[in-house]
Amino acid sequence: MSGPIDFYFDFSSPYAYLGSHLIEPVAKKHGREVNWHPFMLGVAMKGEKTFPLTEYPLKGDYSRMDFDRTARYHNIPFIMPDDFPKVTLAASRGFLWISKNDRAQVIEFARAVYAAYFVEGKDISDPEIVADIAAGVGAGRSAFLAAIQDPEVKEAFKKSVEEIVFDRKVFGAPFFIVDGQSFWGADRVAQLDEWLTTGGW
Amino acid sequence: MSGPIDFYFDFSSPYAYLGSHLIEPVAKKHGREVNWHPFMLGVAMKGEKTFPLTEYPLKGDYSRMDFDRTARYHNIPFIMPDDFPKVTLAASRGFLWISKNDRAQVIEFARAVYAAYFVEGKDISDPEIVADIAAGVGAGRSAFLAAIQDPEVKEAFKKSVEEIVFDRKVFGAPFFIVDGQSFWGADRVAQLDEWLTTGGW
Repeated sequence: MSGPIDFYFDFSSPYAYLGSHLIEPVAKKHGREVNWHPFMLGVAMKGEKTFPLTEYPLKGDYSRMDFDRTARYHNIPFIMPDDFPKVTLAASRGFLWISKNDRAQVIEFARAVYAAYFVEGKDISDPEIVADIAAGVGAGRSAFLAAIQDPEVKEAFKKSVEEIVFDRKVFGAPFFIVDGQSFWGADRVAQLDEWLTTGGW
Repeated sequence: MSGPIDFYFDFSSPYAYLGSHLIEPVAKKHGREVNWHPFMLGVAMKGEKTFPLTEYPLKGDYSRMDFDRTARYHNIPFIMPDDFPKVTLAASRGFLWISKNDRAQVIEFARAVYAAYFVEGKDISDPEIVADIAAGVGAGRSAFLAAIQDPEVKEAFKKSVEEIVFDRKVFGAPFFIVDGQSFWGADRVAQLDEWLTTGGW
């Protein structure tokens, strides 16, 4: 089999950001494409009765330490944003709009949004800032700003999130599905790699 | 430094069971002792507002799959018990009592309790079954049964759990602390190993 690796992420998730870096060399090694799918972790959390990691009394402090330590372990640039988490609807809707036109451009956009938040500390909940990023990768700035307010784009993203959470049962991020196997967490990329190497166990 | 690896676990936690297998070769490689500390995950969950993994609507099904897949990935024998989770007070209090007399025997006891639950499917919430296991490793059966009802042992275990959760901030299992660094999860053993190899990053 040589189907794509479906990669489900929230633009506000530190581990999904790390996962976006970790999945690349693995996909390349196995000649698989990575299909990026932004969704709203908040929708999954509502059903699961979970919360952003940093909001748990003890796990919260540990998580902040672990984001940083794990980033350094993998040599991935990472600075925990002061303002966390963010609702990243603008970036996610914009992703959907760009992806209709240009699949290479949209991945470049997604990487740039992640770097803006987790390296440069920019406010990626601000549509103007996200539009600047879109413009930087060649998507039209004003067309982008119009698209993220377009009721059709809004509805399409809403439906996509529902499908991801309720049909594909994606409850966290990063979440990878490849060859029918689900892998949750940046720390499952090693197993995913081994699964593609061996064909499973 | 050459201090021990403190290993915090709940006898009912599948990932802590897997962690108990994974930490051994790492400890051996670095010449570190493993200090086993049973505690009650339920106490941590109450403060964190978390639940046993299998009780989450979507994460629950994923977790059952992942326990199994991760066990096979590491070649660790594992059969998910039908009756899960268990309150493992008898085993934990008994552990505390045995540990006062014989540190080697208590680890043998802990391993046997884990195997009884996660390989043989025995009911490790039953004091009689746990007493059989204790007898099997050379602790006296009737002394064991008396000890787990001893108010002093009960109180000592209660205090130990509170210290583990509230002072050492252990919110999940397996949880490892070595050289002042905390590592949560069976999937952090690789980082722990690298930390001991390099002295940290």
